[in-house]
Amino acid sequence: MINQLITKIKETGAPIVVGLDPMLKFVPEHLKKKAYAEFGETLEGAGEAIWQYNKEIVDNIYDVVPAVKPQIAMYEQFGIPGLVVFKKTVDYCKQKGLVVIGDIKRGDIGSTSEAYAVGHLGKVTVGSKSCYGFDEDFATVNPYLGSDGVKPFIKICKEEKKGLFILVKTSNPSSGEFQDRLVKAQAAEEQSVGQGSLPDRPLYEIVGEQVAKWGEEHMGDSYSYIGAVVGATYPEMGKILRKIMPKSYILVPGYGAQGGKGKDLVHFFNKDGLGAIVNSSRGIIAAYQQEKYASFGPEHFGEASRAAVLDMKKDIGEALDS
Amino acid sequence: MINQLITKIKETGAPIVVGLDPMLKFVPEHLKKKAYAEFGETLEGAGEAIWQYNKEIVDNIYDVVPAVKPQIAMYEQFGIPGLVVFKKTVDYCKQKGLVVIGDIKRGDIGSTSEAYAVGHLGKVTVGSKSCYGFDEDFATVNPYLGSDGVKPFIKICKEEKKGLFILVKTSNPSSGEFQDRLVKAQAAEEQSVGQGSLPDRPLYEIVGEQVAKWGEEHMGDSYSYIGAVVGATYPEMGKILRKIMPKSYILVPGYGAQGGKGKDLVHFFNKDGLGAIVNSSRGIIAAYQQEKYASFGPEHFGEASRAAVLDMKKDIGEALDS
Repeated sequence: MINQLITKIKETGAPIVVGLDPMLKFVPEHLKKKAYAEFGETLEGAGEAIWQYNKEIVDNIYDVVPAVKPQIAMYEQFGIPGLVVFKKTVDYCKQKGLVVIGDIKRGDIGSTSEAYAVGHLGKVTVGSKSCYGFDEDFATVNPYLGSDGVKPFIKICKEEKKGLFILVKTSNPSSGEFQDRLVKAQAAEEQSVGQGSLPDRPLYEIVGEQVAKWGEEHMGDSYSYIGAVVGATYPEMGKILRKIMPKSYILVPGYGAQGGKGKDLVHFFNKDGLGAIVNSSRGIIAAYQQEKYASFGPEHFGEASRAAVLDMKKDIGEALDS
Repeated sequence: MINQLITKIKETGAPIVVGLDPMLKFVPEHLKKKAYAEFGETLEGAGEAIWQYNKEIVDNIYDVVPAVKPQIAMYEQFGIPGLVVFKKTVDYCKQKGLVVIGDIKRGDIGSTSEAYAVGHLGKVTVGSKSCYGFDEDFATVNPYLGSDGVKPFIKICKEEKKGLFILVKTSNPSSGEFQDRLVKAQAAEEQSVGQGSLPDRPLYEIVGEQVAKWGEEHMGDSYSYIGAVVGATYPEMGKILRKIMPKSYILVPGYGAQGGKGKDLVHFFNKDGLGAIVNSSRGIIAAYQQEKYASFGPEHFGEASRAAVLDMKKDIGEALDS
């Protein structure tokens, strides 16, 4: 799947993933009106509105980007009807040839992580049959519980040739509260490099090193199936993490609405022009609400999203060229 | 809700939460046979089997424990039909008067955490209506993203008088990989205690301190609505964390199947005999598969679960008395 993602990035020339994170305030009134008329102001009505919204966006972008990243929280907030739309969205995007990164940020102890991995990336055994639950291509994972929370995901990824993006340094303002804390080197680490006293380093670097190690367990042709999440809002840290995890694809959130700019992104890429895929969510899916794309009007919100993707591609392309 | 949980703990004399973590290997053959005959060897068939299994366990324990903790991963592995059963289980347990702790370990950046909080603890606005998604009483939360990943949960908890248990030191063998790393004190921390050089401390203590601070924002009568998760498998760390978070209820997983024993638990409680609630999952729900309770037979698995709860209550009671 990492090979397929890279092939599609090369084909489209767009190291871009569109975050399908529908909030009702992004959905144009005409879609909400129609959905509520049919299903009422209910969870089902909300589900129908976001499904029609997603579908039109996907129809307008599927040929210019390699991947989408539905954020499951935005569906889970609508309970079961929301999750039904999450599943429909995953299936529809795959039909359209898009790589689907499930932004689920799961992570638990061993057998529980395995259940999440089975549900999102693998298949579950029921009697003599195997059944797929959500069946995304990649999933994001939270590493706070350590190796035995992550390895069950890797096991399923190996079976299914799927991949992960593990949280290393997140894009939000308070990500430093724990992730940036300076950590002492352990004796084993000092022995392994033959040095008496290694300097203190931020936790995200330690996590990044672990991601690189996990990545060696499941390599694709040129990059690992096991990638990392590093926020565009922290370009200097991205530079260091790029070196710590040379074979890990980096999923970079935080571009656009969260403040990350094209020029901030260069450090996340390797010299081969690969190694990173940049996410934009509301900057694309709610483009029609921005002044820049307002002329499309709410009726043509999908076309506004396409224009925003093409502008983003240009912005990143120029930054990488310079 | 924390007041209600404490009242129910006092009433039952059982600081116990039963983990409703159904795996198909725990479900007696007669239930699976019946469910598969009706729905086939499908996700729906698996869902029906675990629903009937849960229901019989709940019917046998609801009057002797204060709370249950369904682990959502065990439902999510069966896709939408599994999550439908998660929701049915939450609703059924609440009808039976049980406090429901959704073991969801969610956590993300601000607006996304808010969507999770809304979906699991609050209500979502659809047009002019408010709708409940999953509607548990408490949820577990992963703190890796820092305050702006946690505060949206606290905001919704305040609105709904609900609570959280935040991961501090998890019960799994590799939890130390990141959680135990020794962290340097920050200048602000040293200034706040007026000391020039504070000693290095493990990350879980830093997270524990933050939980105590977050807890002050949403206090119940004697304990905070914001609790912590600390594994029974690490009793010495539990002792320290008990002091760091005196007003936080501690949810203690790892008793039983994971190796934690009654005597390990005493440090998690305060002198008032309160402050902790101990989880057991397979030790209770799959009790009939243990030699000790085998005489009940698979047909009477619910009664075996009740017997296991009563034995656990005795074990903890004796440990606390001594």
